[in-house]
Parts: sequence; C-alpha cells; structure tokens
Amino acid sequence: MATKILKSADSAYQYPLLIKQLLTSAQRFETENAIVSGEYRFSYAQFNERVHRLANTLKAAGIGEGDTVAVMDWDSHRYLECFFAVPMIGAILHTVNIRLSPSQIEYTMNHAQDDLVLVHDDFLPIIDDIRGELKTVKNYIRLTDVAGSTDDAFECMGEYEALLAEAESHYDFPDFDENSVATAFYTTGTTGNPKGVYFSHRQLVLHTLNMVNTLNTRSNEGALLKHDGAYMPITPMFHVHAWGIPYAATMMGVKQVYPLRYEPNTLARLIREEGVTFSHCVPTVLQMVIQSSEAANTNFDGWKVIIGGSALTPGLAAQALELGIEPFSAYGMSETCPLMAMTRFTAADRELPTEEQLSHRTRAGLPSDLVDIAIWDPAGNPLPHDGKSSGEVVVRAPWLTQSYLHEPEKGDELWQGGWLHTGDVAAILPNGTVEIRDRIKDVIKTGGEWISSLDLERLISQHPGVDTVAVIGVPDERWGERPFAMIVPKSQDFDVASVATHLQQYVDSGAINKWAIPREIELVNDIPKTSVGKIDKKLIRAQVAEQAAN
Amino acid sequence: MATKILKSADSAYQYPLLIKQLLTSAQRFETENAIVSGEYRFSYAQFNERVHRLANTLKAAGIGEGDTVAVMDWDSHRYLECFFAVPMIGAILHTVNIRLSPSQIEYTMNHAQDDLVLVHDDFLPIIDDIRGELKTVKNYIRLTDVAGSTDDAFECMGEYEALLAEAESHYDFPDFDENSVATAFYTTGTTGNPKGVYFSHRQLVLHTLNMVNTLNTRSNEGALLKHDGAYMPITPMFHVHAWGIPYAATMMGVKQVYPLRYEPNTLARLIREEGVTFSHCVPTVLQMVIQSSEAANTNFDGWKVIIGGSALTPGLAAQALELGIEPFSAYGMSETCPLMAMTRFTAADRELPTEEQLSHRTRAGLPSDLVDIAIWDPAGNPLPHDGKSSGEVVVRAPWLTQSYLHEPEKGDELWQGGWLHTGDVAAILPNGTVEIRDRIKDVIKTGGEWISSLDLERLISQHPGVDTVAVIGVPDERWGERPFAMIVPKSQDFDVASVATHLQQYVDSGAINKWAIPREIELVNDIPKTSVGKIDKKLIRAQVAEQAAN
Repeated sequence: MATKILKSADSAYQYPLLIKQLLTSAQRFETENAIVSGEYRFSYAQFNERVHRLANTLKAAGIGEGDTVAVMDWDSHRYLECFFAVPMIGAILHTVNIRLSPSQIEYTMNHAQDDLVLVHDDFLPIIDDIRGELKTVKNYIRLTDVAGSTDDAFECMGEYEALLAEAESHYDFPDFDENSVATAFYTTGTTGNPKGVYFSHRQLVLHTLNMVNTLNTRSNEGALLKHDGAYMPITPMFHVHAWGIPYAATMMGVKQVYPLRYEPNTLARLIREEGVTFSHCVPTVLQMVIQSSEAANTNFDGWKVIIGGSALTPGLAAQALELGIEPFSAYGMSETCPLMAMTRFTAADRELPTEEQLSHRTRAGLPSDLVDIAIWDPAGNPLPHDGKSSGEVVVRAPWLTQSYLHEPEKGDELWQGGWLHTGDVAAILPNGTVEIRDRIKDVIKTGGEWISSLDLERLISQHPGVDTVAVIGVPDERWGERPFAMIVPKSQDFDVASVATHLQQYVDSGAINKWAIPREIELVNDIPKTSVGKIDKKLIRAQVAEQAAN
Repeated sequence: MATKILKSADSAYQYPLLIKQLLTSAQRFETENAIVSGEYRFSYAQFNERVHRLANTLKAAGIGEGDTVAVMDWDSHRYLECFFAVPMIGAILHTVNIRLSPSQIEYTMNHAQDDLVLVHDDFLPIIDDIRGELKTVKNYIRLTDVAGSTDDAFECMGEYEALLAEAESHYDFPDFDENSVATAFYTTGTTGNPKGVYFSHRQLVLHTLNMVNTLNTRSNEGALLKHDGAYMPITPMFHVHAWGIPYAATMMGVKQVYPLRYEPNTLARLIREEGVTFSHCVPTVLQMVIQSSEAANTNFDGWKVIIGGSALTPGLAAQALELGIEPFSAYGMSETCPLMAMTRFTAADRELPTEEQLSHRTRAGLPSDLVDIAIWDPAGNPLPHDGKSSGEVVVRAPWLTQSYLHEPEKGDELWQGGWLHTGDVAAILPNGTVEIRDRIKDVIKTGGEWISSLDLERLISQHPGVDTVAVIGVPDERWGERPFAMIVPKSQDFDVASVATHLQQYVDSGAINKWAIPREIELVNDIPKTSVGKIDKKLIRAQVAEQAAN
C-alpha cells in the first residue's frame, strides 16, 4: 500500500515556497507603513521597486542562479533589499560576519565561494587587506551612508544607490525549486574554522510563517509586533538573518527601522523618535541601551524586547520591567534558523509573585509551532518532561540547517539519529516550557555530578554587588573539575568573601550542592565576549589555564 | 545556470509537512484546555490518546495507506479525531456532505471509492437505502450520541466508543510524502454531478499556519481566537473541514466546543455555558442563533464571528454589533481550502462612521499571507486595483485543489493560465481589500451593461420592510436580461411599489442605473436555499422560468 498522490491539472500552479511570495504578501500594505534607514525613508511600494532595481543591478554584475553574493554592511535598508533580491533571482546571500577577524572573513568568503561582494565604507580596509586572497570574487559594489560620496581608491562596479538609480525598475523573478539554497552564513565554534550553515527558500518561508505565529501568541496582552507598531532589529542582520524577523516584518507590512551601526544613544533616540515597539537583542545590548545617556530622555514604556543569544538574567529582566519594557526570552541558534522556543506569558502568569514572573521570563520558553524538542540522556534515550531530568536538547523543525556547508562530516556530527543535536543541556517542565541548564561543554563535571555553570551565574548575579559574572569549570585533581567565577563588581569595594555567604542560602535550600560554591573568584573590569556578544568561555578558559601555568 | 540544492546530512530529518505535526504541536498544551462535544469532555492528552486508538481501530478495519474513509456525522469530537487519525495513517478522509440527496451521497461515495464508512445513527436510514449500491465500501462503524446504545439491525464492525475503548493506545504514525492526499469532499455545482476537491497534507499544514496568522492579525483589538478563549464551529465539518479551523484550533491548543447537530437554542446555550468566544457560520445561521429563544438569556458580548459562504449584509452586521458580537467577513470556497481573504479591522476603521464600518465588515476583506489575488477581464488581462474595475477573481495560494477528483477535464476548466478561476466577479481597492461584486453566472447582463445581483440585493435589503431578498436576471427580448427580485417582507402589508421608490435614491446618487430597478417582484415566505444554506439561484431561475412558461 502507498499513500495517494494525484496528478495536478496541467495548468495548476504548484506554488513553490519562495521568498518572493513574502514580498508579494507585503504589497497588500503598500499604502501604509514605511521602511526607515539612516536618512532614507521608503514606502513599501518604493521598497518593492528597489528590490526589482537591485535584482537588475545584480544581473548586470553577472550574478545569476547558483551564484553567491556576500554583504558586509551594518543593519540598513540595503541589507533588507539584499535579503530579498539576492535569493529572489536564485542566488545565495552570504551574510558576512563582520565581527570575525580579517583572516576568518577571508576564510569564509573563499569557503562560501562568493562571486560578488557588497561592502560598506567601514569595511573597505578589511577588503583592501584580503582582496588579493579572495579566489572567487569577481566584482564589488560599494555601500555608503554618505549619499553621493565617491571613493576612487576602491576599484568596484559602482556605488549602490547610483547603480539602483540607473537600473530597470522591473525584474521578472522566476520560479524554481523551493529547496534551492537562499542564504548562508558562518558560525564560530569553540575550535577550528568557522562553519557554514545554509537555509533554503522553503525553510525561510516556513520560518517566517512560524515567526509571525509565535510573535502573535506569546503574550496575553496581544501580539509582540502589531501592524501599527514599529520594528527595529538590534541583533545584527548578518547573525541568523536578524533572527529572520526582517522577513516576518516585511510580510506583515509593518514599519521597520534599521539603525545602521549599533550605537546605544542612537538606538535609544530611534526608539523614541520612530516609536519603536519591538526589538530583539542580546542581554548586553539591552543593558547598554537602557544605560545610555539618551535613555534618560526616552520613555521605553511598551517596548517589547526578545532576548536571545545568551540567557536573560532575572536582574536585567527586573531592570527592564521597571522601565516599562517587556522582556521575553527566545531560544535558538545559527543552526536552527534560529527560532525554537519563546517565552509565553499568560494572564495567569501576570498574577504570579514577581520572582516567579522573572524566572518565567528568563526561561527558554515554549516550543514554537511545528518545533519538536526532546531531551536525551548521553545514551540517546528520551528523558521525561518533569522539570527535573536534564539532558541534551535535540530538535526537529522544518527550518534546520541540513548540514554544514561543504563539510558533510561536521553535518553528520550535528545530525545524529534523525535529530539535530544542539549541544545544550535542558529540562522540560510538564507544561512544555524548556529551561536551558547549560551548554554540554560548559557543564562543570565535578565528583560524578554535573553543575550547571549557567545556574551558578544566575545565582551569583543576584548578589547585589555583582554587575556581571561568568563561571567555568577548571581542572581539579581530586574532583575532575571545580567552579571558577569571573566577576565584574558594581563598585571597587566589593567583598569577594560575600559571594560564598550569598550562595550559602541556595545550599541551605537545596538548590545547589556545597561544592558548587566557587572557591576561586577573579574580579575584572570586563568579561571576554565573542564576536556576537556572548560570554567567551573558550577565551576565559585559555586565560585561566595560562595564569595557572605561570 | 541553476539554483543550488545541497545534499543533506544522511541523518538530517527532512521534515515533510504532515498533519501529525499539528497534533505534536498541540501536545505543548496538554495540561490546559478541553475539547467538549455533547456529554464528552476531553483533555488534549486524552484527545491525543484517542487519535492513537482510532488509528488502531482503522487498522483493524483493514484501512491502510491510500484507502478512503468516509464520515457521516454532525460536528463532534469523533469528527475531529477523524480529521487527524485518518490522514495520519496515510488514508484519505472523505467528509460526506450529508445535506445532499441520498442518490447524490451514493454518487459521491462510489466516486471517492470509500472503503470504510463511519456513520451516525441519524444517517443510518440513508445508508440502509443506498447500501446495496455502494460498490467499494467494505465495512461500517456506527457513531452514536446515546452512549452504550446498540443497533442490532445495522450490520457493522461495531460502535465507535466501544471500538476505541478496546484498541491499543499507541500507534506509530509513519512519515510519507507531504503531497499525499489527506482529505476529499464534494461541492455542488449548478449543473451535473457533485465535483470532488482534494487537499494534501502539505496544503492543510500550510493552510493551518495561514489560518492562525490570519485570525491573529485581523483586528486591532487582538486575535480573533485567543488561547484563553473557546472555539465552536457553526459551519459543518463536512464543509471544507469547517474552514480548516479545527486544525488551527488544535495546533493552538485552545478550548474547542463541538455542538453536534446545529440547533439554534443549543448553539446559544453553548455560547453562554462554555464561554465560546469565536465561531464562523453563514449569515442565515447567525440570524437563527440571535433570534433563538435562548438568545434572550445569552450575553453575546465579545463573541467574534466570521461570516462566509454567502455575503454578510450591513443589516445583519448592524444587528450583530448591537448585541456586542463582532462580525468579520471571510472569502473562500471549497476549491480554495477555503481561506483567501478576511476582513481586517484597524484602529482607524473603528473611527469611521457606522455606515462605513458596516460596509468595511461586509467586504471579502484583505488577502491572507501568501494568497495572490488578481482580477482579470474576460480576455485574461489583469485589471487595476482601483476599486472600480471589476473582473473575475483568479488566485494562487499554496492550498488550492490541484484539480477535481478523477475529472481532469473539469480541473482544466478550473485552472487556466496557471491561475485558479473562482467564477467570482470583484473589484480590488487601492488598499488591497477585495470587494466581491457577484458570481459571473449571477451577473445580470442587460443592454451591454453588467448589473451585480449582489449589489442590488444589498440595496434592496436596506429597505426597512424587507427581511431577505434574492435577485436574478431573467431573459428579456429587448435587453438580453432584466432583474427579477424575490422578497421575504417583514410584514404582510408590504407595499411592493415602495421598492422602486427606495431604489430611486441610489439611481439619483449614481450608484445604480435606472434599469437596475426590478419591475418584477415576487413576495414569498422563504427564499430557496442550497444544501449549505446559500441562496439557490439555480432553483429560483428554474421556478421563474416555469412560471413564465405557464
């Protein structure tokens, strides 16, 4: 027996899921909202025409189906136009991680086989450095925030706005296989070269539909992003397509604000002046925005912010709520496009004591539609959703990278037993909420027990004198590993011994074991961060090892 | 050149879009809402287990991949379980239109090649009549609302609840091609036999995601269906899967109320007692509910209702609003799964004068995400979206029937030039709103002009003495056709001549031409309706022709 698949009428439209259809959907709202970026302000009708002009510009640059276009830009209307035009002509958009080192950038551009590079003035020095080493690049387009400026020293096809102005205003976007690769970008692991992930048109369309559903259903007070609201990304567009929310916002036809280079005062000013109601960022950036000098003149009330990338702490959540900002947590990673789960806040949750509300907001949240999340023990057995058992998060969803770009053996490590292995350790509560406990590699393995470094960080961050904290496991002859804490204190007269006193209450309540109290604490001015703003535990480990060796 | 399609990791999960994944999503909410049906009340966890039990029951009945299971039932938990279990085992669910004549039902069951029939007590007489003529049916399962009742006279496998109780509680639902047919049902045309439409797993999953997005974004006051609300269908489940909303409601995990046979007093009581916040129905049913005797004891405030099937009149919309009911219009048809467009009501719309608000609510609305609607002139040229030009509505979306079941030549008529032809005549406003003017076949072609019978019905329905009205074109030697109106007056002393006086104001304002005023009016007690409650213009035309002949 087999399921029945019937023949379609000859003229029936098969409707492949393609990114161009998100833009067709946006045309319903042509007469309404605007897309704002620096000095530019476009209607959706203008934006649509610019995508057509960009497609013709790319064609003139010799780009066609299967070619790769790299973009090095801050978050701008240009980037958004590339999100659409590049995949819509059948090419692949490589969103270059501009926070990598020049040699890593060179590696990724050669590895992705970029054919054309769109590069902002600020990154010309990098390109100048590596240009001779880029083996596949045939041409460049210059991006600038200084309208009409020229740069004769940089050899290229021309400047973006000038090229668009000259281009034809209509492009006949073709249909093709929905499984065609649309985007690719690189994620930095703890070892070795950056790895490339990639997503197809089908995956991005499905992720977009899911993102809209998720944003619409996670607060009993209504959608996180409403049609009369305004969206501003504060997670870079090179980082997992700014979580894919620019695609969702465009399909929804809402006002979009692109802040160019992230500058905390500018961000605060844009929130105020453009009426931004919805953003997403890492915790550090949220902290920088609310501590900026412009923050004093800005009413953040009603601003909804999803925190991802690293965990939202109860302390920061409380700070945000005091300002009228509503923080949500989301769970995702480069390999997952990224959305897997997001805080769901019901009317009942709003009745809970503040402490529980905060803890609810800082969990990874409830899986999105069509996302199947399980936790497995090291032997690959599913664990119960009892809020206690913790194991590695494995996932199935329609939008997960199907391998690593040109590195099938690494893809096989990612995908085992038909599930994508996240490397995260979590518990799942009976109500379905996912609670991330740690990264597998960051778990502190001590005396046969696992201590979550994230748990410890959360508890230490509740110490009134602690600004930020990072915990790692360091080698211990007797126990295997022991915890080590790096703390940025709020003031100079911080009493290191008070950390143990503070943690003792959690030992007393049974939340942690007594050997979880770090006996080694280093006070620092800054905690090392990765290029995307996460705590760089790899670097901390290296520093600590070096200190130990000396 | 060709787009790039990369090889997946061997163990990567391809994630076909299958109905079983909607149910997996629902499991997030297992501990929350209930599914109510007659005397039954199930948690989502129980519902999930019942779907597994039903799958095992179907297997025991010899049903496997590619087989067809027919259901003849009122709207019940049983039907919802069939919505999932039948396609989830790879079989096809035929939702039998129980309002067809017995000979039409026989035709559809033979044409769909039903293997197993689940039949409610109320339809046993029909089956008894046609049983000998059903060529492919191998077995029957009896459905009853009278728990524990037996019917020895009806030869079958057993009674539904008893069979489920005996069945294994786990079924290992397989993966298969997402283009496998999941459901099929029949639509009655104006001539000839009913035609079968069919939808694949992929189409139903995409329609579900789209339905949730649409329900979430059409009112500035928030989602039409919220997680703490309750859903009750009042468009039968055999009719385009009750618009596919049971699939959406299940994925969302909301409370669902299944009213069994539609009885206006029961419907009003359920709205009150179960706290129903969201439904959908044809205009006639809404009228029956709010005019029922139970309506007097029922507070309808906050009930959101989508009207489809036939057009919502401004009169009925006003009546509903007075009771606190918020009415929306939706546009769809059997061939389109059905959703194409729905009213979008913004904060600005709520500021409009009542008349304009009503007119806004009675339009077909704004296309949903991924739905590409165009209007074409008879030569196949796209017409501008200026609110004036009107032409046939043609559509592309990921969830349109790809042909008619086993009738490819009729499928070729439906699909022409790569677009599905709806047979509806509409204008599209500059803001994207679709305004249905008429069915192509119901347009009155007079003196080289087209008069919309729906326009005329709307204007005549605004006459204070008119309860309901139907307008058709009748043959006219001089003009080709002339309008003919059939009116149900509110009272016996209705003055027929007042209709012309009433319409003269619209002639004076230029809304209609003077030859649009019907010179022939018939007063009746009831207007003929089709099996799904639409005005039966085919029958009216036949009656009028017969009268003319006599």
